[in-house]
Amino acid sequence: MYNSFGHIFRITTFGESHGVGIGVVIDGIPSGVRIDQDDIQAALHRRRPGQSDITTPRKESDRVEVISGLYHGITTGAPLTFLIRNQDAKPDDYQQMETVFRPSHADFTYLHKYGIKDHRGSGRASARETAARVAAGAVAKQMLTSKSQIEVLAWVQAIGGIEMPPMEGISLHLIDNNEVRCPHAETALQMRQLIIEMQESGDSVGGIIACHTQGLPIGLGQPVYAKLNAMLASAMFSLPAVKGFELGSGFAGTRMKGSMHNDAFYKDAHGAIHTRTNHSGGIQGGISNGEPITFQVGFKPVSTIAQSQSTVDTHGTEVSLAAKGRHDPCVLPRAVPIVEAMTWIVLADAWLMHRNSNWASIHPSE
Amino acid sequence: MYNSFGHIFRITTFGESHGVGIGVVIDGIPSGVRIDQDDIQAALHRRRPGQSDITTPRKESDRVEVISGLYHGITTGAPLTFLIRNQDAKPDDYQQMETVFRPSHADFTYLHKYGIKDHRGSGRASARETAARVAAGAVAKQMLTSKSQIEVLAWVQAIGGIEMPPMEGISLHLIDNNEVRCPHAETALQMRQLIIEMQESGDSVGGIIACHTQGLPIGLGQPVYAKLNAMLASAMFSLPAVKGFELGSGFAGTRMKGSMHNDAFYKDAHGAIHTRTNHSGGIQGGISNGEPITFQVGFKPVSTIAQSQSTVDTHGTEVSLAAKGRHDPCVLPRAVPIVEAMTWIVLADAWLMHRNSNWASIHPSE
Amino acid sequence: MYNSFGHIFRITTFGESHGVGIGVVIDGIPSGVRIDQDDIQAALHRRRPGQSDITTPRKESDRVEVISGLYHGITTGAPLTFLIRNQDAKPDDYQQMETVFRPSHADFTYLHKYGIKDHRGSGRASARETAARVAAGAVAKQMLTSKSQIEVLAWVQAIGGIEMPPMEGISLHLIDNNEVRCPHAETALQMRQLIIEMQESGDSVGGIIACHTQGLPIGLGQPVYAKLNAMLASAMFSLPAVKGFELGSGFAGTRMKGSMHNDAFYKDAHGAIHTRTNHSGGIQGGISNGEPITFQVGFKPVSTIAQSQSTVDTHGTEVSLAAKGRHDPCVLPRAVPIVEAMTWIVLADAWLMHRNSNWASIHPSE
Amino acid sequence: MYNSFGHIFRITTFGESHGVGIGVVIDGIPSGVRIDQDDIQAALHRRRPGQSDITTPRKESDRVEVISGLYHGITTGAPLTFLIRNQDAKPDDYQQMETVFRPSHADFTYLHKYGIKDHRGSGRASARETAARVAAGAVAKQMLTSKSQIEVLAWVQAIGGIEMPPMEGISLHLIDNNEVRCPHAETALQMRQLIIEMQESGDSVGGIIACHTQGLPIGLGQPVYAKLNAMLASAMFSLPAVKGFELGSGFAGTRMKGSMHNDAFYKDAHGAIHTRTNHSGGIQGGISNGEPITFQVGFKPVSTIAQSQSTVDTHGTEVSLAAKGRHDPCVLPRAVPIVEAMTWIVLADAWLMHRNSNWASIHPSE
Repeated sequence: MYNSFGHIFRITTFGESHGVGIGVVIDGIPSGVRIDQDDIQAALHRRRPGQSDITTPRKESDRVEVISGLYHGITTGAPLTFLIRNQDAKPDDYQQMETVFRPSHADFTYLHKYGIKDHRGSGRASARETAARVAAGAVAKQMLTSKSQIEVLAWVQAIGGIEMPPMEGISLHLIDNNEVRCPHAETALQMRQLIIEMQESGDSVGGIIACHTQGLPIGLGQPVYAKLNAMLASAMFSLPAVKGFELGSGFAGTRMKGSMHNDAFYKDAHGAIHTRTNHSGGIQGGISNGEPITFQVGFKPVSTIAQSQSTVDTHGTEVSLAAKGRHDPCVLPRAVPIVEAMTWIVLADAWLMHRNSNWASIHPSE
Repeated sequence: MYNSFGHIFRITTFGESHGVGIGVVIDGIPSGVRIDQDDIQAALHRRRPGQSDITTPRKESDRVEVISGLYHGITTGAPLTFLIRNQDAKPDDYQQMETVFRPSHADFTYLHKYGIKDHRGSGRASARETAARVAAGAVAKQMLTSKSQIEVLAWVQAIGGIEMPPMEGISLHLIDNNEVRCPHAETALQMRQLIIEMQESGDSVGGIIACHTQGLPIGLGQPVYAKLNAMLASAMFSLPAVKGFELGSGFAGTRMKGSMHNDAFYKDAHGAIHTRTNHSGGIQGGISNGEPITFQVGFKPVSTIAQSQSTVDTHGTEVSLAAKGRHDPCVLPRAVPIVEAMTWIVLADAWLMHRNSNWASIHPSE
Repeated sequence: MYNSFGHIFRITTFGESHGVGIGVVIDGIPSGVRIDQDDIQAALHRRRPGQSDITTPRKESDRVEVISGLYHGITTGAPLTFLIRNQDAKPDDYQQMETVFRPSHADFTYLHKYGIKDHRGSGRASARETAARVAAGAVAKQMLTSKSQIEVLAWVQAIGGIEMPPMEGISLHLIDNNEVRCPHAETALQMRQLIIEMQESGDSVGGIIACHTQGLPIGLGQPVYAKLNAMLASAMFSLPAVKGFELGSGFAGTRMKGSMHNDAFYKDAHGAIHTRTNHSGGIQGGISNGEPITFQVGFKPVSTIAQSQSTVDTHGTEVSLAAKGRHDPCVLPRAVPIVEAMTWIVLADAWLMHRNSNWASIHPSE
Repeated sequence: MYNSFGHIFRITTFGESHGVGIGVVIDGIPSGVRIDQDDIQAALHRRRPGQSDITTPRKESDRVEVISGLYHGITTGAPLTFLIRNQDAKPDDYQQMETVFRPSHADFTYLHKYGIKDHRGSGRASARETAARVAAGAVAKQMLTSKSQIEVLAWVQAIGGIEMPPMEGISLHLIDNNEVRCPHAETALQMRQLIIEMQESGDSVGGIIACHTQGLPIGLGQPVYAKLNAMLASAMFSLPAVKGFELGSGFAGTRMKGSMHNDAFYKDAHGAIHTRTNHSGGIQGGISNGEPITFQVGFKPVSTIAQSQSTVDTHGTEVSLAAKGRHDPCVLPRAVPIVEAMTWIVLADAWLMHRNSNWASIHPSE
């Protein structure tokens, strides 16, 4: 089933939405990384269900139990394992799903693939799996920030047709200032309004998350199949509901001329080489060039809606379905920390991969 | 450097643009696949430089030499190795590049990462590496089409701001009817005009390739990190110049309501379950649902342009650069077979991965 | 740290000897495999500490908690996760180890490699990690035996200088008939006597485990680097204390002439092709040939002994050390189920890998 | 078919014994490694057929063609690809093998696995594949010796029943002083005599190669599944004809008491910690401890013999077979450089893997 991600910093997630719990084994993390469990809980808190009136009412404390890998709060080089037990599972809500294919869900494909279907909350297809990624991302972040100035910041750029205007000075404070996680306060209000409308009408809505990474060293990423952008694209498309990924200028860049799109190099006042524009999105030839990495991720509207829909059951009989399970009218606010987590995981992996690039700079004493 | 792609059907490419040649080892291909070398050449012919007046004038016959893996034209289960020798390499054209960082190229990042730079035609960063992928893709196609009705069709959807209108009945014939590889003849003419303008003004332009796969069985792809969409996204973002990837409804889908976006299931006249719409792009929960797989790939304008540009050299001195190497004003027409090739490679891999999904359907005799 | 083993049937183990517990994620197991938890417990029971007067007195019930992957006792294709909590951990016994390097233990190498040392019971170096393998092996066994006649039988062939004579009709009953797990009752008595002598004198002893696999289909294993024998050798050498591995005729075979060593093919009464001898140990060219797979694994004497030994502490000062932690005077009896488990895991992996070997025999409907 | 070996320093070999040639792609080699092609040829020269009157008379110059990855003799970080063309292939010698299963060869298992059989010289099962490994091993050696004092020395310890006595001062000079590659001159003469007897009687003989590695840093190898010994065991068992592998005390160690077997630590005159004995063979807990790594590899007698043997053909009819292809009466002399090559490859991989073990010692500037 390929539940592992990463080459060297490698996570393996496990668990189901309505089973015992979900968890992650982080293998390949070096020894000597100090882990602050409160930071991990804080990250999970941002993803947690029930965090506001515009998210699912499911209540999960998402408390992380450390199963292995730490000694006095420091990684030992052994696999770091976290378990997050499910508390508010309500498998009964999914009784109907045992025989009905929910539109745009994985019920149909799972049953065909596996001949069996854990209908309770979608099993592995549930977005609950992403809690394990958020915990792992917090670890990646703690590792990298102990040796670098890297910052990763994601936010809600658009909900449905509502998009925030270009804006300077985006900060975590501005992002977390509202339940939508859009740093532009006025737009956030409109977005919130739209989400509530959807909630009330038993519908759902999608949107776009933007992510911005800075402080990255030059050189992360591998030239061909493990390009940093390919790793990011793969990471984002491994998330439920993602329909699009753009790096730097993205699809808009496809309409530009080369003479406009090319990022001219120049030497700054400190003698460092930078680019005047950043249409490349911080990655050239698959490798970070020291400029901010910028990308956008498009999420479709949530498939689970309360409105009655036409579908078929496992016998092929057409039936009508109105979802009973608790769900979000819009996943974007809760997806912000997930996008950040996957970015940190990719960066941690790329960082460790990069260390063997240039033999001339390798000191045998290490 | 991670020059391998795939889990079971696994390709490893090697070689440089202006060295001896480029090639590929295809490992994990089963025995018993009949390989038609003419088909491989035909696929390479579609990618070949110098194929028309709107592509680079570099002349390469791209003749594939089979080094291993075939016996009487049938795969033996041994690694299938192809070598394509470079014929028209002109490393002298790249003399200036030894010391100058070309804007939006990989020169700068490679030098930082590796401390060395094979400046002749960008080495591994050159799109010439993709010829090896096209050869491997032709093999994947021959394997799959011998046991299935799968068809993969890619075409140029947009060049710069010129986009073809929605259109039925797109066929290989219509696509290859013009040098642009846009099936809509009128739009193709406009696109061609734009490319020629770019060529004449020493500039370049990007665009969008659409790809459509049909005849796929239900069940390809793995639920979490090896989602079929994640594999496709990674494959496309491993190509040079790609800036965006969209599945199904893509970014437009982020603006729809769930009640509109959901793909309702129904039973067709033959008793098969299908969806009335295909916003999912043929993939649900990371797994193919039997509907056509539809995606779009955005390519930035070519970085190499003849116009003079401002940049810096390896000493940080600002210099002016006008490219001398032969290059395409627009990569899109030649990228069509590359997108198809990577799609076939992903499908071949996903097909072989899928075969171990359901123990109940596994016959021990195999 | 590379805590994963296997290509398709892939286990990842985690946990420490004196932490919360140990466990395993089994990824790549197909859906539809019926899992009997009592069988898993029975396998663990054979490995359990404190099972007899010749094993460590540590008391662990080794009760497996299923965290994920089962629905009504059947695998769903999701990762199967087991957690075995430590119950009788006595980290205090390891106080002295915080600063002393135990001879022939991993203390010295771990500290140098990781700069940190979880001294409580050796952390990941502890043989307690193998309980997770035994649980995974029981799953592999249940999977394979549901579709094949494969049998794996390991036993204690030698303890110290005492080796059992050649013997026909070895069965699980005979093996488990005594605490030593040597099927030859008389030899077992002598072995038991030797182990008790070692125990009483605060010393330890090693030995050889033989393993015999029959009922295997022809074709498991891959020709070059994933030869079935290479996978088995790697599996066995990943176990603590292993110093030697022999397939079929082993080192004795190196002294034979080719004309004697070659296994002549013949057709049996049922028209099946077999070999008259089996010096190959059931594997030719890395691939199973249908004959029994036979190998032997040599284990060194346990490093932890009660006798006083000379060593150095982390400051390099020479000190004297007498172990206080509970330990086995001889690991062989408890290693029998571990060798079997690793064999099942290799076979399950090889079985799934093999299914993509021959395109001609692949049915697209699967 | 899994033709790749290694985690970071990763080789993929390709080619057949009687096809175009054989080769290797070395991926993951850092940039900046100076490669001396003469050294590679020298290594191949030691493995070359026809090097003496006791080896196969097949004549191959084994000239390495560099296809990619070098620029002015320095690695660029791109995959390093070597091609060695076959010159003296005589597929006609293998005509009979098209329908006959040679005893103890891979003919039978390959045909069952792949349904096809490249009978000409065994295809991938041929020991000719190991020439590619020798070339890759020479690269690994050049990389490591440019930054360390590591030395790897293998020699013939035993041929048939003739074993050399324990000996000090073994050197490359003594080893290569005779065609057998046994450093003990008198024993070498006896071995040579035995090999010639085998040759004359149309028979073959096996033996044991010992390998000794010194100058290794402490810390190579990973604790659980990628133990340095597991990597070495896997590497050696991936070679044709290997039947046994022993580390340090090996099977003899299984007969010792723990109090004798344990390697006591002490501080030497320079303050370095060493062990008084080295029964561990330089590896403790899967990790190098700084002592010499010592192991032995057992090779069975060559399966191809000129004597007439009884076997069956593909129809199951019993036939008599006397080999016509050219072959070695004893592979040991030519296997010495192969064992060294695989050791270097494992060490290069373990070295690069090790660099991410301890976060505290990682400098972000790298």
